[in-house]
Formats: sequence, C-alpha cells, structure tokens
Amino acid sequence: MANRLKIVFLGGVEEIGKNMTLLEYGESAIILDAGLGFPNSENMPGVDFLIPDISYVKEIKKRIKGIFITHGHEDHIGALPFVLKDINVPVYGSSIALAFLDAKINRAGGNKKYKLVQIDNGSIIQAGDFSVEFIRTTHSIAGAFSLAITSPSGVIFFTGDFKIDHTPVDGKVADLSRIAAIGSKGVLLLMQDSTNVERLGYSMSESRVGKSLESVFNDNKNKRIIVATFASNIHRIKQIVDCALKQGRRIVLSGRSVLNTVAIAQKLGEIKLDPEMLIDINNTKKIPDDRICIIATGTQGEPSSALTRMSLDGFKNVSIGENDTVILSASPIPGNERSIHNVMNNLSKKGASLVYESLSEVHASGHACVEELKLMIALVKPTYFIPVHGEFRHLKKHAELAESMGIPRPNMFLPELGSCIEVSRGGIRRLPSIDAGAVMLVGDIESDEGSIIERKKMAEDGIVISAITLSKTGKPKVEIDLTSKGLNILSAIEDEIQSTLQSRFSGGEYRNMVTEELSQLTRKIISKIFYSKQKRCPVIIPIIMFE
Amino acid sequence: MANRLKIVFLGGVEEIGKNMTLLEYGESAIILDAGLGFPNSENMPGVDFLIPDISYVKEIKKRIKGIFITHGHEDHIGALPFVLKDINVPVYGSSIALAFLDAKINRAGGNKKYKLVQIDNGSIIQAGDFSVEFIRTTHSIAGAFSLAITSPSGVIFFTGDFKIDHTPVDGKVADLSRIAAIGSKGVLLLMQDSTNVERLGYSMSESRVGKSLESVFNDNKNKRIIVATFASNIHRIKQIVDCALKQGRRIVLSGRSVLNTVAIAQKLGEIKLDPEMLIDINNTKKIPDDRICIIATGTQGEPSSALTRMSLDGFKNVSIGENDTVILSASPIPGNERSIHNVMNNLSKKGASLVYESLSEVHASGHACVEELKLMIALVKPTYFIPVHGEFRHLKKHAELAESMGIPRPNMFLPELGSCIEVSRGGIRRLPSIDAGAVMLVGDIESDEGSIIERKKMAEDGIVISAITLSKTGKPKVEIDLTSKGLNILSAIEDEIQSTLQSRFSGGEYRNMVTEELSQLTRKIISKIFYSKQKRCPVIIPIIMFE
Repeated sequence: MANRLKIVFLGGVEEIGKNMTLLEYGESAIILDAGLGFPNSENMPGVDFLIPDISYVKEIKKRIKGIFITHGHEDHIGALPFVLKDINVPVYGSSIALAFLDAKINRAGGNKKYKLVQIDNGSIIQAGDFSVEFIRTTHSIAGAFSLAITSPSGVIFFTGDFKIDHTPVDGKVADLSRIAAIGSKGVLLLMQDSTNVERLGYSMSESRVGKSLESVFNDNKNKRIIVATFASNIHRIKQIVDCALKQGRRIVLSGRSVLNTVAIAQKLGEIKLDPEMLIDINNTKKIPDDRICIIATGTQGEPSSALTRMSLDGFKNVSIGENDTVILSASPIPGNERSIHNVMNNLSKKGASLVYESLSEVHASGHACVEELKLMIALVKPTYFIPVHGEFRHLKKHAELAESMGIPRPNMFLPELGSCIEVSRGGIRRLPSIDAGAVMLVGDIESDEGSIIERKKMAEDGIVISAITLSKTGKPKVEIDLTSKGLNILSAIEDEIQSTLQSRFSGGEYRNMVTEELSQLTRKIISKIFYSKQKRCPVIIPIIMFE
Repeated sequence: MANRLKIVFLGGVEEIGKNMTLLEYGESAIILDAGLGFPNSENMPGVDFLIPDISYVKEIKKRIKGIFITHGHEDHIGALPFVLKDINVPVYGSSIALAFLDAKINRAGGNKKYKLVQIDNGSIIQAGDFSVEFIRTTHSIAGAFSLAITSPSGVIFFTGDFKIDHTPVDGKVADLSRIAAIGSKGVLLLMQDSTNVERLGYSMSESRVGKSLESVFNDNKNKRIIVATFASNIHRIKQIVDCALKQGRRIVLSGRSVLNTVAIAQKLGEIKLDPEMLIDINNTKKIPDDRICIIATGTQGEPSSALTRMSLDGFKNVSIGENDTVILSASPIPGNERSIHNVMNNLSKKGASLVYESLSEVHASGHACVEELKLMIALVKPTYFIPVHGEFRHLKKHAELAESMGIPRPNMFLPELGSCIEVSRGGIRRLPSIDAGAVMLVGDIESDEGSIIERKKMAEDGIVISAITLSKTGKPKVEIDLTSKGLNILSAIEDEIQSTLQSRFSGGEYRNMVTEELSQLTRKIISKIFYSKQKRCPVIIPIIMFE
C-alpha cells in the first residue's frame, strides 16, 4: 500500500489485460473492465464460461473506488453481474455499454441496486487518487472509449479495444486531437490493444462494409436475404437494416441477442425502425422472399443459434433453399472454424448461396492494424509501453513494433495473467505475481481443473467400470459386474477381465486389504488385459463394496 | 455393370473426392487415390484417423484393375496399407509417392508383396477399358500428377491437388502444353481441386518462399534458427537446407516424419546433403547457436511433435530462449488454430522470436487459387464439370466459378460422400447413393458412432455411477455405492441421492422388476435430484447386481 502506482493483470482468458485490469495507488484502486471469456469445448468440455478470479480484488475491496468500462462487449462487461455481487462500487461507462450491462443484470435476475454512471466523450471522473478521462474511440460496437488515467505517478493511457475509423457509421470519430493533446503533455505509460498486431496496414472502415452489403443486396434483389452478424454490432445491424429497407424488405430479427441489441439501439436512437417493417419469424411464410431480410445470430456456428438451426432441419417457419442468400457478416473467432464450416456446408447443401469475408468485404475488424497502432504510439508518445489485449505472441510482436518506433525494451513489460508491477518515472518494477486466471463456470457452479481433466480423459479413452461386492471372507458375494461406456470392447476381452477378476478374488486372500488397495489391484488387472489386447488405456473405475 | 461410365465418390473426410474416387465401366474399375483423414478431437475424441469405408469397393473387387495415385500426401495414400489388405492390385504413382507409400507399408509391418509401379510424366497405363495418362503438375509435394483418363464414354480429366507454379524449386513445371492438347481433342468431364476456391488471384510460387526464408536467415545471422514445416514438402525442406548451408549451419532433423522425408529425398536425389553437415539433436549443445538450423515437425501444434515439446519443457537437448528464431513455414489446418496458438504463445514466453505466414511470406499454399482454376478450365474445356477436393461450400463456390466461364449448371454435379453418377455425352445421371463415409479408427480398432457420442457426452457432463447389490428380497444387500468422475458434486446432493435410493429400495417392492426396469428407475431418481439442485444432467450409469 505504498504510494506507488501498481498495476495488476487479472482476466479470464489467455488474452492478457482484456477481461480485467486493476490499478492501485495508496488508498485508492480502480478496475478497468470486467469481462468474461468463452472456453473452447475441446480443452474445457462442458464449461460455459470463464470469469476472472477476483480473490485478490476482494482482499482490497475497501479501497476500490469504481469500475471503468471501455465498451459494452461481453469480454469487457460479462463478468460484472458476478463481480458486483462482491464489490458493489459505481460502474462508469457509455450509454450503450450500460444498456447492455443493464440487460445482463436483469437477465441474471439481479434485484440489487447498482450505481451505473453514464459518461460521454470528455467526461472526467475523480476516483480517489485517480482521475479518469473518457476519450471517444471507434470499435465494432458503438460507445467505445479509451481511458486517460491521471495518477500521482503520471498519466496512463489505456486504449481499450479500438481501431481508427475515419468514416464511422454514426460520424463519431475517435478524438485524435484530444489524444494528441494528452500525448503532448506527457504520458507515463501506454497500454495498447494488441489483437491485430499480426495484420499489416489499416483496418477497413465500417462504412465500407455498408457499401459492400449494398452491392450484395443489389445482386440478390429477387432472393430472400439472411444476414448473420455479431449481435452487439449496432452499426453493422443499422447498415443491414438500411439496405433491407431500401429494397422494401421487412426485417425479421432472429435470436435473443439480436432482439436485445435492436431494442437497445432503438431506445438510444441509434437505429430507427418503423414497427410495421418488423415482422415475427413465425410469419415469414406470408411474405414473398424478395421482401424479407432476416438478421440472425450464429456467426460462430453455435449449436443453438438461429443460423445453425436453419442450416439443419429448418427453424420456426424458415427453411433454407435455392432462393436464399446467406451473408456471413463476421469473421471466425479462432477455434470456431470447424463449427462455422459445418454450418456453411449444410447451408450450401440446402442450396443457399453464401457470401462471406474471404470473397467479399462484408466484414471489418474492430481492432487497429499495424499502421493504426503506430499512429497511436506516435500521438501518445509514452515513456513506458505495455501491450495488452492479446495472447502472449501478440504482446511480443507488439513490443517489437514499439521498439521499432524508438521505445527501448527496458521501458516495456509483457504481462501474463497474475502479473503485478509498479510503474514510476524511475522505471517498471516487477512485483511477485498473484493467483489470477480464470474461474470455470458450469452453469453457476465452479468447476475445478481435476474434473476437466477427468472429463477429457473419458472423452479420449472411454471408461470401464468393475463393481465387486465382497463377502466377509473377501470373496465375491455376487457376480462381478463389468460395464463400459464409449468403448467398443471385444466380448473376448470382457470375458477375460471378468474371469481373471473372479479367479483372483475367489481365493479370498485379499480380505485384509483396504478399499484403496483393492481398487488399485483391480485397476491393474483390467488395464493390463486391456493394453495387451487393444493397446489402449481406458479410464478404469473400480467399485468395491463390502458385506 | 452396364456399359456406361460410372463414378463413385468415396472418402474418409468431409472433403469429397479427396481421399478416394472410383471409376467403373463395364467389367473394369479403377481407384483414384486412397487417403486417410484426421479427425478433430472435439467431435471425435480419441479417434486416431479416418479411412474410407470400402465395403462397396470390396463388392466389386474382382473388376478392379489398379489404384492410381496423384501424389504422396497422407490424404491420398494413407489408407493404402488398409485397402491393399483387401484389394491387392497394382498401385501406380510417382517415385516420390511410392517411396512415401513404401515407408508407410514397412512401418505398418506389411510383409505381403504389393505391386508398386512407378510412372513419370506422359506414362500411359492401360487398365481394362480405361487408359490413364499421368500429366505432371505442381503441388506442395514433389511428384504430383493430374490424370487424363480415357474411357469408352470419353476423357475424364482429374486434376488431383495442384497449383500452377511457373517457377517450382526443381524446375519441373506443370505440363500445360499437354493439358492444352488434351483439352483441344475434347474432354468429357473435368474433376478439379476446390480447396482454394475461396482465394482470389494466384497462389504464391514455392521459389518465392525460398527468397523469404533467405531474408529471414540473413536477418537472424547470430541466432539459432528452428524451422517447422509440413514434413512431406521436400522442396520446402530443400530450400531451408540451402539457406542453412549458405550460412555454414549444421542441420538437425527433429521428428520421425522429417527424418523419413529427408531420407527419401536423398535417396531420390532431390536433396543433396553432406553427412558431415547433419547432426543429431542430442549433440546440439556442442555447437554455437549461429551454426545450427533445426528442422522440426509440429506445424499444427500436435501434442507429441518436436516443436510442441520444445515449447514446453525442453526437448532432447534443445531448450528455447531469447537467442532462438522460430519460423513457422506452414499454415494452420482449420480446427488446429488453438493448438498452434498455444505453441506460439509458449515459444514467445520463453523469449523466442517468431516468424510466420501472416507477417512474412514463409509459406505458400499448394492449391490453385481462383485465377489458376479458371486457367485450367480454359485449357481443359470440358463438357461436364464436377468440383472435388473440398467441403461442400467449396464445391458450390467452384460451381459458381465454372458457371461464370460458360459451363451450364445442368452440366455440373456437386457430389457428397457416397454419391454415384453415370456420365455420358448425353448428360450426368444420378444413381442411388451407396454407404460411404469414414471408418473411425482408434488404434487398429474400428469405433462406432455410438461410442463417440457416449464419450462426448461424458466430456460435456461428467458421469455418476450407482452400484446397488440386491438381496433375494429385493433389498440392498450392502451399502449403495455412489461414484462420480468429472463432476464437482456437492456432498449434500450425494447424500440426498444415496438416502433416496436407500429408502426407495429398502422396502423391497421392486423385487419383481427386471434389471432394465431397475436401471431406469435408478437413473430417474438420480437425474431428478441432480437437475433440481444443479440444473445439469450428467451421464448416469446404474449398476444393479443380484445375490
């Protein structure tokens, strides 16, 4: 609790500093974002989501002055319903971020009162020793902000997720002049989004996506058009709606999160839509194909999403056919490629024409590419640099980029989950790391690493269960039961296991062994037979019961 | 067995016509390629590989005149050791394809005699009613060929996997003149590689990769260089070796498949390498970093590969540090992104600099992009067109491309696994499909769909096992045992399940039920309690034993 600026890197996923970052100075502490991560089903089967481990935050709970939200994406606000239960402090964010948050809290059945404070470009919030200025930026969700945080040690510039879009859909450009002014006054530390450091050049403007969508709509005048997009991208949805209305198409919103976004966007005046033009998905049969545009969830091939269900056996009254053009206005999140490709293959098999990013400009990333990253470094001119929002390889590439712009390597730090540092004009000092990382949630229940490993092993190798009931003499009381799941056991192997167990136990010589020893013995007998016959090691579950 | 040309689309993976295609005419039949597929661990946990279901081929076994191999990649030759056991016919392929096949058969312990016949550019093989001409093409493995198959119904041009590389490493360009001549004489049907139909323009030449590698080597003169690449790409390995030797580096080959390829390439004269310059991976410590180049397997983040093991706790005598530059001279196969990214993150954490495709031209695809596909269609000028070698969405895009070049839609056919057609000058006629698809192999053992579903369910939801031993009166003889795996069961739930089962059974009123009924009952009791407390449905395995 020394009077030095301390930064703690928390977070749920591999992408460091994305989900949650903590700043401390003396008696004050503030939290930047509180998001969740989505696990991949291969490595964490059955896990629903990952939230940051906030044990450390709870320890210093009393010093926390507020939570500052850069924008309303799940990976930045998704953990708030959990965090606010333990740490009820004011949450500062844009109208859009707060609207998304509010909807989340309501869905989670939150009846507790939280203090949500709306900010705008230029808002300055005093939070103990920190003063936080919100500076408008551009991203794949409206209402995104960078933070210029003044502490007694100096100014920290935290970009949040951003790109530099000079022609955003709502005309609200990033406030580059203000960023330049802050940079000119001197910035101690820049923490910058590393997501697209592997992409050269500039990101594409969102308004260019609008132009591409318009030309796809024009090329498909006589067909039904279905567009799948990231549900939170209000500007994308607005552009799709505009294209559809220009052709006199009615709009169908399919999927909870799309409905939610459009309701929020209408309330905030971001999308204007005559209720007459909105129709329910169950009523599409009555309207000719060329008068319908369906906006659906499912860009990542999620099994229960609208698009995935349409690609299979039809969904509500929508069945896909030759007269459908499906636009995937999104890009795959790494790890989801196979699921997305399955959906695309199934849509193709039903006859739909597909339009997607690799062949048409129907999607733009929300993250700054190399030239934008350089521009931001040039404007902010920081003394120290910490790449955040990326996996470790991104941070490393980002450090190389910053080095090429004259920031010396000793003035940089590459954080990992749980990293703690102190920053002052004198330098960056590494402190002992804390336990951070992710809490894996299965529904509302925390899952431990051990269960996940067991589940993965069962998936890889199947299981064999032997149930043995022993009499007081240590002999099997009833016939030994052998059950398996997820295995194609040859009956010869099954017979051999059963008869071996039966003969080994029937002498009663193990009667003095305790359960654990008997289990070990059983496991050894079964695995030996299995390995010699099938060269595999299933999970073996020996159950020993005593009379 | 009518005198018509029949085509059957077999194969192990979603990519149609890649692994295996069958052509029949009257009493003659020939097989084009016999490859295997690799499953993704998410959808098929524990499955090692997928081979084509050849039940149908076995039925017409006597008519099969030969197997024609386009090139030596696993997905084109990998199933041969299995197929040849049932169908021992001559196999025709390039020296390189046959060398890879030979090594495979030897590893599989094949002591049976197979007839492997080496072909070269222009070789023509008579096989019953078919005459098969091999035409040199270019691909990411040396010794790749297209097939021009003359049947009584007309000529079928089967591209195999190809690109049009005008500057291949060995100077052996695709024989475009011969293709043009065949096209001018009239081709009934073109079957063309669809893999890269989503990529506009031309593919990059393999020799351009060589130039990029050279510049990376020059930029890293003082560092140890580790290059991971697809092991079968002889020309890539040759270019890496050339770069290394130019800097006086010794070569370390790491990983069985890289060793295998270099042995084959040396035998065939494709790579020349002074044995002095080759050193064993265990001896790298003795040599300065700037005098070493390690060529390793592991471009796909495979857990047991050399690169993955280096990225973790060191491997043999190689431990990764700041003085290592790792070049990933490969691209991710869709579905492997997460594993590859993990390896990259771990290498970065150890301090290595990474060089990879998205930022440097250190990899080139082996498949034709849109402009090359158009060129081939323009040269072959087929009456009918069947896109192959791709997932269904690729086939569909490829059909759109062919249509834009004037091939009418009714002259095309989009095959699925098991599709059968007849082709003649009169048109393409669809025949009833056959059972095709993949045989899932776990080691040498076939796995059925049911086991896979069980394994996935256990991975998602965990398991609960209840073991009940009933006495003759239908009452529990010993205490009911409850065991779980992969679950975090609250002990309160466990207690409730146990006491509920105990009390329900202790009356003995179920004594007349058969095992199946008792199992159902137990399952119902457990799942009800579980769902009401945790909103989850684990896999429940009731074991009922009788005195």
